[in-house]
Amino acid sequence: MAQPTIDHRGPDFAKLTLRIMDKLAPVFNTTSPILIFPASGTGAWESALLNTLSPGDKVLAFETGHFATLWKNIAEKLGLEVDWVTGDWRHGIDPGVVEEHLRADTQHQIKAVLAVHTETSTGATSRIKPIREAIDAANHPALYLVDTVSSLACSEYRHDDWGVDVTISGSQKGLMLPPGLCFNAVSEKALAANENSRFRHSYWCWKEMIAPNKNGYFPYTPGTNLLYGLDEALSMLHAEGMDCVIQRHARLAHATRLAVEGWGLEILCLNPEEYSNSLTAVVMPEGHDSDKLRQVILDRFNMSLGMGLGKVKGTVFRIGHLGDFNELMLAGSLAGVEMGLSLAGVPHRKGGVNAALGYLASL
Amino acid sequence: MAQPTIDHRGPDFAKLTLRIMDKLAPVFNTTSPILIFPASGTGAWESALLNTLSPGDKVLAFETGHFATLWKNIAEKLGLEVDWVTGDWRHGIDPGVVEEHLRADTQHQIKAVLAVHTETSTGATSRIKPIREAIDAANHPALYLVDTVSSLACSEYRHDDWGVDVTISGSQKGLMLPPGLCFNAVSEKALAANENSRFRHSYWCWKEMIAPNKNGYFPYTPGTNLLYGLDEALSMLHAEGMDCVIQRHARLAHATRLAVEGWGLEILCLNPEEYSNSLTAVVMPEGHDSDKLRQVILDRFNMSLGMGLGKVKGTVFRIGHLGDFNELMLAGSLAGVEMGLSLAGVPHRKGGVNAALGYLASL
Amino acid sequence: MAQPTIDHRGPDFAKLTLRIMDKLAPVFNTTSPILIFPASGTGAWESALLNTLSPGDKVLAFETGHFATLWKNIAEKLGLEVDWVTGDWRHGIDPGVVEEHLRADTQHQIKAVLAVHTETSTGATSRIKPIREAIDAANHPALYLVDTVSSLACSEYRHDDWGVDVTISGSQKGLMLPPGLCFNAVSEKALAANENSRFRHSYWCWKEMIAPNKNGYFPYTPGTNLLYGLDEALSMLHAEGMDCVIQRHARLAHATRLAVEGWGLEILCLNPEEYSNSLTAVVMPEGHDSDKLRQVILDRFNMSLGMGLGKVKGTVFRIGHLGDFNELMLAGSLAGVEMGLSLAGVPHRKGGVNAALGYLASL
Amino acid sequence: MAQPTIDHRGPDFAKLTLRIMDKLAPVFNTTSPILIFPASGTGAWESALLNTLSPGDKVLAFETGHFATLWKNIAEKLGLEVDWVTGDWRHGIDPGVVEEHLRADTQHQIKAVLAVHTETSTGATSRIKPIREAIDAANHPALYLVDTVSSLACSEYRHDDWGVDVTISGSQKGLMLPPGLCFNAVSEKALAANENSRFRHSYWCWKEMIAPNKNGYFPYTPGTNLLYGLDEALSMLHAEGMDCVIQRHARLAHATRLAVEGWGLEILCLNPEEYSNSLTAVVMPEGHDSDKLRQVILDRFNMSLGMGLGKVKGTVFRIGHLGDFNELMLAGSLAGVEMGLSLAGVPHRKGGVNAALGYLASL
Repeated sequence: MAQPTIDHRGPDFAKLTLRIMDKLAPVFNTTSPILIFPASGTGAWESALLNTLSPGDKVLAFETGHFATLWKNIAEKLGLEVDWVTGDWRHGIDPGVVEEHLRADTQHQIKAVLAVHTETSTGATSRIKPIREAIDAANHPALYLVDTVSSLACSEYRHDDWGVDVTISGSQKGLMLPPGLCFNAVSEKALAANENSRFRHSYWCWKEMIAPNKNGYFPYTPGTNLLYGLDEALSMLHAEGMDCVIQRHARLAHATRLAVEGWGLEILCLNPEEYSNSLTAVVMPEGHDSDKLRQVILDRFNMSLGMGLGKVKGTVFRIGHLGDFNELMLAGSLAGVEMGLSLAGVPHRKGGVNAALGYLASL
Repeated sequence: MAQPTIDHRGPDFAKLTLRIMDKLAPVFNTTSPILIFPASGTGAWESALLNTLSPGDKVLAFETGHFATLWKNIAEKLGLEVDWVTGDWRHGIDPGVVEEHLRADTQHQIKAVLAVHTETSTGATSRIKPIREAIDAANHPALYLVDTVSSLACSEYRHDDWGVDVTISGSQKGLMLPPGLCFNAVSEKALAANENSRFRHSYWCWKEMIAPNKNGYFPYTPGTNLLYGLDEALSMLHAEGMDCVIQRHARLAHATRLAVEGWGLEILCLNPEEYSNSLTAVVMPEGHDSDKLRQVILDRFNMSLGMGLGKVKGTVFRIGHLGDFNELMLAGSLAGVEMGLSLAGVPHRKGGVNAALGYLASL
Repeated sequence: MAQPTIDHRGPDFAKLTLRIMDKLAPVFNTTSPILIFPASGTGAWESALLNTLSPGDKVLAFETGHFATLWKNIAEKLGLEVDWVTGDWRHGIDPGVVEEHLRADTQHQIKAVLAVHTETSTGATSRIKPIREAIDAANHPALYLVDTVSSLACSEYRHDDWGVDVTISGSQKGLMLPPGLCFNAVSEKALAANENSRFRHSYWCWKEMIAPNKNGYFPYTPGTNLLYGLDEALSMLHAEGMDCVIQRHARLAHATRLAVEGWGLEILCLNPEEYSNSLTAVVMPEGHDSDKLRQVILDRFNMSLGMGLGKVKGTVFRIGHLGDFNELMLAGSLAGVEMGLSLAGVPHRKGGVNAALGYLASL
Repeated sequence: MAQPTIDHRGPDFAKLTLRIMDKLAPVFNTTSPILIFPASGTGAWESALLNTLSPGDKVLAFETGHFATLWKNIAEKLGLEVDWVTGDWRHGIDPGVVEEHLRADTQHQIKAVLAVHTETSTGATSRIKPIREAIDAANHPALYLVDTVSSLACSEYRHDDWGVDVTISGSQKGLMLPPGLCFNAVSEKALAANENSRFRHSYWCWKEMIAPNKNGYFPYTPGTNLLYGLDEALSMLHAEGMDCVIQRHARLAHATRLAVEGWGLEILCLNPEEYSNSLTAVVMPEGHDSDKLRQVILDRFNMSLGMGLGKVKGTVFRIGHLGDFNELMLAGSLAGVEMGLSLAGVPHRKGGVNAALGYLASL
């Protein structure tokens, strides 16, 4: 990314773009177009809605946590009607509830189902394939829009096989880059819906992006230097092998949960089938403030844990274990938490780190 | 920009943001809020329109070149009615025409005047202050929106003194960064208009940006690593002194024009008062293709000149002289053009480089 | 270090050199000249000998480990006669033995005492001040040459107060740089000895270095880009505070030893007064090969532990805890060792990491 | 070079070393060992002498300029007897004089002929092949030691074909790296001479370097990060093609000389067969100080021209055109000189830049 910025209308740039597209496809597991916007992940939410829907359309969405709520808020700001299924922030989306809601929508007023794959605020990973099956079981034509900002390249994800219509993602998590790029992978069905969309917008316009992309160009100035980084990051992922990358994340996530159990603390996500490969949110014991703990750990060990966001502010902290991350970096993180719990006077058992190491050394 | 990405919700990040804001203000010459979006410059056009206007509003805009036309197209895509004053791509905006149009609009249906300061496709720099005076002379309440993507930190610019309501800019020209950040500096009047805007959007929402910005935070993930670069680039500009930076650009631009005259070629911009500090567009002799010339120069000297965009494709090439650029880099560029003209068999006189050097050595 | 190489005969370079010299002095704790050679640490050994002694001179040296032996070998290659006090590689230099040898040298044939401060191969840190006192007690005029390659900026070191004549060091340990610079800090007495030295050499010549250094220049091309890095590294050290830097190393070293004890393994260094702040060498249980353990840890966790060097090859491994290193990085290292011991089937107790964390969290 | 320093005793490092060795061979055009020392070029002079000769040996050397004189001084400091052929600093070595001196040495007391290929202080390139032929014509067994610090990868050079015994070079010129690595390519005859050398030294010891090098290792800490850079720089050279690299340098050098002639100034090197591909030294008109000119150019255009060194201080300046350098960078340099001559009031004709461009555009 430190290389000089080259002319994005020149032939070398086109080669870069096409090379990136080839390497991105097996990360999303799709043969559909993948659009890359020079924007942070939030923009990809908006882009997915603006390009496939129209003002006043109804969408079905689920309160799995803070980011699902933010996405819902955006949908409402855009003038969509949101059928909002509230939740306890401790579970992913229940496929049965999806089916039920869609069956009840006999008029097919619901135009899209919005699902956050891994909810970054809670560490619950909704089951995208069973939700697809639920949509199919209800025989409902709604589009299926999935946010993979914090799951892509961390958990298994199959845009085509799972029948996703728009996959939303960003550069700064599993792709190991700084923020500044966001993605929409779009199915044929999404492109068809795009033809009828009546939203007014320009920056996020799929059509104007897809046409020049075919030749390696962009309709306006792209995020050139982040694209250099993306080229390199994708090579690193493929050198390790996408399956290995995902297994590594699964392994580190399991070790983290053993540490949390070892400390006698509670994992926010209650359904083991929905544990996340990317991060683990931990519930503080009653009467203890997670932000105080986080401050102690930042001051003493220069480690910035994820804060509790929204409803769980102060009651939850989050341990990230995604991206360019390995066993010993995790051991360092868990050691920081274990020492921090002690220094901050948070009741816990010793032995979390030990439990994690025991597991990692048993493989 | 190569430093690790830090937590954008942490205290060090807030300090960075506030430091940047302090250093940005004297670049725009404003005390108003300056919003920084993680997006390329195109996004700042859309943001300015979406935040101050409403669907169906009329705006007055001027065909000064390719980018003015692109902005107009965006306005139309958003559902605005554009009062489009056509032009010959060889002049900036005529303040007299602005006044005339506004005087004729006795109903004050025109809600905004859109002006591109330096038109990157033509090298004509519209006179922003006289246009302001024209608006005032017409006693018209329209907002004044100005695109400074390729002029900021190259030509004199005074957001406050010149009564601009929204200044639009980007990171990749005078600010010497890769693309990926864009700016809106917004007046009190623009903020008041924002209250009544009825567009549906979220990413570009000023209100949600301004509130956390006051404390150094952002409503969603910012372009962290580009912000590190912005911090450094602003320090470099202020170390040189904004006045010196602008004089340097003026000097290099003047030398470039002397070279073009030395070659016996024509400068696209016909009005000397509107010559640009940032770039110079040169008209090819009849019957010669600028893209062929550009290809010769790229192949032989690894220099990528700006292509003729839109209406002037093939008939114009552009010499950039902005950003981190000095006398000897300019000499290299001009030498590449002079040799390229010869190699491509384009009729010209020798002596362009000499004329430029003679001027630069006379100061 | 990624900045362009500047002219080392120009004024900006002179300022850089003088700034570095100011910041180096409190790292060596000296007001004497500090010479910087573009070479790795080995060169600074040779330089110290060549500049102060003459062929056939006798020196007193101590077999504290691999690097002391290498230095002795160099002395012999240069034609010096080495009075070599053998050792068990588990202790530093005994000041009593120094005194005894010097007292016995009634003719003052010994021209220099060679001491390695921290022996990188064993993790034993000889006590430089008591050795100085031993030399004084023997009333002996020998020069005192001390190698601080792996101790400088990790352990307390006082060139002036401890009466050292030549301090030898390098860039790649406590100074946190790549290898490529080495140092000689030289006392008045060493400079006087230099006048009578009869060795034939040029690159290492002190006189030709000291004269231009006073004005910020070098007699031949210096290691320009490493000097940029040194400038920055010294600023980092002073920002933390030299005392804090050394306390941090002491803290991490103590935690490491608690881990080793927790595993039920033996620390190579037998004298607690001589434990090193920079690294800890650990003895393998009988019948287990340290290189096999190291390979397991490299393969599984991508961590390269120090190998057993020379006499202790296969029987010892080394844990480094120096330079840009903190509590959580140490926790990662110790976790890698603990898991590696398990994976490689090396008999040990669990709980080493726990013991280290317990200590670090108790401070 | 910005990558983390890796363990130079590990397997990845060995692969790096062997890869570098493969790519270095066609740069020196040799199948003999090439030794890489972590030191600046000066060290490679000393290494060549120390490893092949013995105190009191006689060498034949030629005063072609400042660096030849420095090398002679080193030889004298080492205790060698130098048969010093004085010169006017405007020519390379005369092969006829070489032959004459060697023929006169009927006792074969001369053990080595020292030749600087491109004398950096004068821009004269001695003809290495004809000198070899002169040695052969005299039927003299002297070793042939050649300094290519500023010619390697700029001018044609053939270690094996031209019968050179030790080729001396450095990293910071044609190899486009920062200073900090130096080279000795050594013939079989040089290795045989090494067996009988009686100098006392260690850092520069060939034997201890060659043995581990075969497996990709070094006897002491190498310049790790510069080696990463060397790996990349060699790939760049081979991607362009060594012949193309040398032709590019020849082309830029020719253009430079046309500029000097265009200004009506004198090239220091008087023999066109000895013009250098790497740099051109220019004689100031009588009564004008080159350092004053250089200061004007540095102040006004931030370009640091080479100063006149030693005997030609103040009367000569040097234009470098080597390494990562192309037509437009040269045009910038020449423009800086032409404007500087004018600003400093140095009598000259205009048109130097023009002459250079005319030539470059004619190819």
